[in-house]
Amino acid sequence: MLASDLTAAAIVTIMLIPQSLAYALLAGLPAEVGLYASIAPLVVYALTGTSRTLAVGPVAVVSLMTAAAIGELATEGSADYLAAAVVLAMLSGGMLLVMGFLRLGFLASFLSHPVISGFITASGLLIAAGQVRHLLGISGGGQTLVEILKGLVPNLGQSDLATLAIGVGVIGWLVWARRGMKPFLVACGVSPAGAGLASRTAPLAAVAVTILLVRGFGLDRAGMQIVGAIPAGLPLPALPAFDPGLWSRLVVPALLISVVGYAESISVAQTLAAKRRQRIDPDQELIALGGANIGAALFGGFPVTGGFARSVVNFDAGAATPAAGAFTAVGMALATLFLTPALYYLPQATLAATIIVAVLSLVDLGAIRRTFAYSRGDGAAMIATILVTLASGVEAGILAGVGASVLLHLYRTARPHVAIVGQVPGTEHFRNINRHDVVTAPDVVTLRVDESLYFANARFLEDTVQAQVGANPALRHVVLMFTAVNAVDISALESLEAINHRLRDAGVALHLSEVKGPVMDRLRRSRLLDDLTGGIYLTQCDAMQALAPDLTARTLTDSRRETLRPARAEP
Amino acid sequence: MLASDLTAAAIVTIMLIPQSLAYALLAGLPAEVGLYASIAPLVVYALTGTSRTLAVGPVAVVSLMTAAAIGELATEGSADYLAAAVVLAMLSGGMLLVMGFLRLGFLASFLSHPVISGFITASGLLIAAGQVRHLLGISGGGQTLVEILKGLVPNLGQSDLATLAIGVGVIGWLVWARRGMKPFLVACGVSPAGAGLASRTAPLAAVAVTILLVRGFGLDRAGMQIVGAIPAGLPLPALPAFDPGLWSRLVVPALLISVVGYAESISVAQTLAAKRRQRIDPDQELIALGGANIGAALFGGFPVTGGFARSVVNFDAGAATPAAGAFTAVGMALATLFLTPALYYLPQATLAATIIVAVLSLVDLGAIRRTFAYSRGDGAAMIATILVTLASGVEAGILAGVGASVLLHLYRTARPHVAIVGQVPGTEHFRNINRHDVVTAPDVVTLRVDESLYFANARFLEDTVQAQVGANPALRHVVLMFTAVNAVDISALESLEAINHRLRDAGVALHLSEVKGPVMDRLRRSRLLDDLTGGIYLTQCDAMQALAPDLTARTLTDSRRETLRPARAEP
Repeated sequence: MLASDLTAAAIVTIMLIPQSLAYALLAGLPAEVGLYASIAPLVVYALTGTSRTLAVGPVAVVSLMTAAAIGELATEGSADYLAAAVVLAMLSGGMLLVMGFLRLGFLASFLSHPVISGFITASGLLIAAGQVRHLLGISGGGQTLVEILKGLVPNLGQSDLATLAIGVGVIGWLVWARRGMKPFLVACGVSPAGAGLASRTAPLAAVAVTILLVRGFGLDRAGMQIVGAIPAGLPLPALPAFDPGLWSRLVVPALLISVVGYAESISVAQTLAAKRRQRIDPDQELIALGGANIGAALFGGFPVTGGFARSVVNFDAGAATPAAGAFTAVGMALATLFLTPALYYLPQATLAATIIVAVLSLVDLGAIRRTFAYSRGDGAAMIATILVTLASGVEAGILAGVGASVLLHLYRTARPHVAIVGQVPGTEHFRNINRHDVVTAPDVVTLRVDESLYFANARFLEDTVQAQVGANPALRHVVLMFTAVNAVDISALESLEAINHRLRDAGVALHLSEVKGPVMDRLRRSRLLDDLTGGIYLTQCDAMQALAPDLTARTLTDSRRETLRPARAEP
Repeated sequence: MLASDLTAAAIVTIMLIPQSLAYALLAGLPAEVGLYASIAPLVVYALTGTSRTLAVGPVAVVSLMTAAAIGELATEGSADYLAAAVVLAMLSGGMLLVMGFLRLGFLASFLSHPVISGFITASGLLIAAGQVRHLLGISGGGQTLVEILKGLVPNLGQSDLATLAIGVGVIGWLVWARRGMKPFLVACGVSPAGAGLASRTAPLAAVAVTILLVRGFGLDRAGMQIVGAIPAGLPLPALPAFDPGLWSRLVVPALLISVVGYAESISVAQTLAAKRRQRIDPDQELIALGGANIGAALFGGFPVTGGFARSVVNFDAGAATPAAGAFTAVGMALATLFLTPALYYLPQATLAATIIVAVLSLVDLGAIRRTFAYSRGDGAAMIATILVTLASGVEAGILAGVGASVLLHLYRTARPHVAIVGQVPGTEHFRNINRHDVVTAPDVVTLRVDESLYFANARFLEDTVQAQVGANPALRHVVLMFTAVNAVDISALESLEAINHRLRDAGVALHLSEVKGPVMDRLRRSRLLDDLTGGIYLTQCDAMQALAPDLTARTLTDSRRETLRPARAEP
C-alpha cells in the first residue's frame, strides 16, 4: 500500500508541476500561485475526502472561470488581481462547505449532461484560443472568442518565430507522447510499465529541454517571454482581507465555480470508486472540496477541484489510500522550495503548449452528434451552451445552459403524453386506443396521463378534459387513470377541483383510478375527495366494472371474471 | 338570443362605466382612457374569441401592473405616461398574438396556482392601500406597501373630511349592495331578478348620487378632487410612435402583463364554458386577447384582459353569443359620446371606493392556510410571492413566484421516492420492502424509481445505485424497475450508462424491467441497450424468474406459476 501510494504520488507530482504552473498562467496569475494551490488543498482533501484516488488541484476549466471572474475586477498582474483570486477560492470553499452541511449536493444536478459537456467543449476551445498568443509571443487577451481573435489579429505581425518553434515543437512532442510514444517504446523493447511512465514524464521533459534551450541560446534576451523569477519558499497561512464590495461581486462567480467544480469532481470520483466497489459520499465530498478551497485560499492559492486526467493517472499508478494525495503535496512542497530557481528560463510557450494539448482532449464534438441523435431538445440545449459560452464567456454560457435545460424540462412535462385507453379484450389490461385493439364504453372516457401533475401541466390537463367533454355529447363519466402520476402539487389539485366542478356543471362524473399511496395520502388533505362527483377505484378494471358492467361482462371470458376482484369504490 | 344578449350587454355596460373610469385612475391614466379601452377590445374579442361570455376590458390587477411598469418611465399625467401605456398595450397584444400563433399558451402554466393566487391577493392589498389617498383626498403614491405608507403618513393632516365621508359612504353602500341589498329587496316584495338588477346598478347609482352631492354643495370648490373635464367624442385610430428605447424597456413588463392577463382570462373563460359544455380553444384565446390589446392600443387605450366579475355577470344575465360583447362596446361608445359631460363632478373618492370594494374581494387569505395544509412547499412559494409583491412591487413578485415554484418542482423531483421492492408471495406483484411482507433474493436488488429520469435526478440515481453496491458485497444483479419512468433525458441516459459501466467494473449486472414504449423507443437510439450487462424484461416478474428462479419457484403457488409467461429478455 505504502509503496504503491508513493509511486502514484511521484508520477502525479511529475504531471502536476508543469500543469500547476500552466493553469496559474491560464488564470492570469503568477506561476507560483499554481504551486501553492497544489499543496494545502491536497492535504485537506486527503484528510476529509471519501475518494481514495481523486487528485485535487488546479484544473483547466476552473482556472478559465477564475480568469473570467476576476478579469473584470482587476488588472492582470496587479496585487488586487491576486487578492481577488484568493477571495474567490475562499468564497467558493465556504459555499461548498455550506452546501455540504445543508446536503445541497443536488444543486450540481442542475448542470445537465448536455450543458456540462457543451460547456467543457466550449471552454476548451476558448482556453486553446486564448493560449495562441503565448505560442506566438504576442500580446492579446479577452473572455470571448471574438474578443480573443480581435486581440490577436492586430499583433500577428509581431510574432516571434523562436517562440512559435518551441510552442509547436512541444505540442508535437506532447501529442506524440500521448498517442505514439508508448507503442514505439514497447516496440523498442521497453517494458509496458516503463513506457507508460516515460509518456507521463514527457511534459516535465519538455519543461527541462525548453529551459535548457532558452538558457543555452539566450532566447530570453532575444525577446522570448519566460516565466522569470518565482519567489522561493512556502507561503505562510493568511486570511484574505474582507472587502464587502469585492466579496459581493464575486458571489455569483464563486457559486458557478463551486457547482461546476463539484460536478466535475464527483463524476470522476464516482467513476474511479466504482471500479473498486468503493463508496463516495456526495455530501462529504462537498465538505472536503470546500475545505480544500479554503486551504487554497489560506495559503495564497486559487480555486481548485478534482481533476480528471491526474485522478486517472493516480488510480492507474496504484494509489490505494488518501496518503497518495498527501505524498503528492509533499512532492509539490519540495518542488516549491527547491525547483523554482530552475524554472526561471521556462518559456511561457511551453506552458501554453501544455495547456492546449490538455484542453483539446476535453473538446468532444462527437457528443453534439450523439446528443442530437438521442433528443433534439437536449442537443439544442448543448448547442446553446456552446454558442453562448464562446460568444459571451463562461458565466453567461453556464447560466444559459442551466436556463435552457430547465425550460426544456418544463416544456416537455407541460404537454405530457395523454392516452385514451380501453380494455384489451379478455384481460385486465387497459391500453391506448390508438395503438391497441381495445373496447370502450360510449359514455365513459378514460384518460391516462403519463406524467406527474404539477403547475406546468395543470392547465394542459384542464384543456384536455375540456376538449373531451366538448367533443363527445354522450359522455357521462371521465376516469383519470393515475398509474404514471407520481405527484400532484397544489396547482394540479386545484385544476382537478376545477375539472370536477366543470364536469359536474356539464352533468359528467369524474372518477380516479390506480392512485398511488403517496399521492392518495396527499389528496386526503384536500377537499377534492369529499367533492368528487365519481369514485376512486383501486384498479382501472374495478372502475370499468362499476361504470360499464355490460362492457366488462361482454369482453371478459368467464374464467377471467372469477379472478377479478369485486368493484370497490374507496372513500 | 338577441334579447338576452341585449339585456346582458346593458347590465355589463352599467357595471363597466364606473369600473373603466376607476381602473384608468388606478393605472394613473386620464379617466377617458378607461372608456377607450372598453370599446375596440370588446369588438375584436367578439369577432375572434372562443368564449361566448367572457367580458374583456380593463381589470384591476393588469391596471396595477400597468401603473408599475410605466410609473418608472414617465411622470403620471404627462403625455409620455399615456404614450407608454398605449405602447404597453401594443407590445402585450403583439406578444399574445405571437404566443397564439406559436401555440405557446403553456407559458401561462408557469404561473402556478399558489403564485397566481398569492399574487392576486398581494396585488389587491397594494391596490387598496394605494387608493386610501383618494379616500382621504391627499397626495401620495408608490409601488410597494412601504412606499405607499411612507407617502401617506406625512399628508394625513391634510385629509379632507367631506372626501372621506363620500368615500366611506360609497364603500358602505357597495358592500351592502353586494351582501345585503338583494335579500332586503326580496323581503320588501321585489322580484329576485329585479333585486339582482338593482344590486348591479348600485355602483352607477353611487356615481350619480355623489356627482349630484358635489354639484349641489359645491364640494369641488371646497377642494374635493373630482374627475373633471373628459374630452367628448370617440378616439380616432392611430399607431403608437416607435421609440426603440421605450419599447425595449417595456418588453419585460409587457410579457408579464400578457402572461398574467392570459392566465386570469383563460381560467374565467373555461369555468363559464364548462357550465354550458362549450369549448374554449386556448391558442385561439391568445390570438383574440392579442387582437383585443392591439385594438386597445390603436384607439388610445391601455392593456385589457378578460375580467372575472363582469364575465360572471354577463353569463348570469344570459349572454348567449359573442354579440353581447359587441353590444356592450356600443353601450360604452354611447357613454363616451354623451355621458362624459355628466361625469365632470364625479369625486375621485367614489372611484377609489369602487376599486377598493372590487379588489378586496380578490384577497383570499384563507387560500394561504389551505395551501399550507396541502403542501408546505407550495405554501412557501405562495408566501414568497405575497411578501415580495408587497415589499418590492408586482414585477418582482411575479418573477419571485415563478422562480420559487420552478425551484420547488426541481427540488421535489431531484430527490424522488425510490423503493427497494420484493415479490408479494403468491402474486406477480412487487412492492416496497419497507411497507409490505415480500421476498427478495440475496444477490438481486430491484429499485423502483417513482419519477421520470432527467438531469435533476440523474446524479441522485447514480448515488442511490452506488450506495446499494457499496452496502451489499453479495450483490450480483441490480434491476431498475421503470413502471413510473415516463421519460429519460440524455443526462439520465448518460447516468444509466455510467451506472452500467460502474456496475460492470464491480462485477454486477444491470437489468431493466417494465420499460414503457416511448421510453424504449428513445433508448433504442442510444448505445445503452447494446452495452447493457443485463437484460430488459417486459415485466418485473419475468426479471425475477430469470435472475432468481429458485425464489420465484419457492414463492409462487403451482397454480399461479402456470399462468406466468416464460422469462423473456427483449433485445
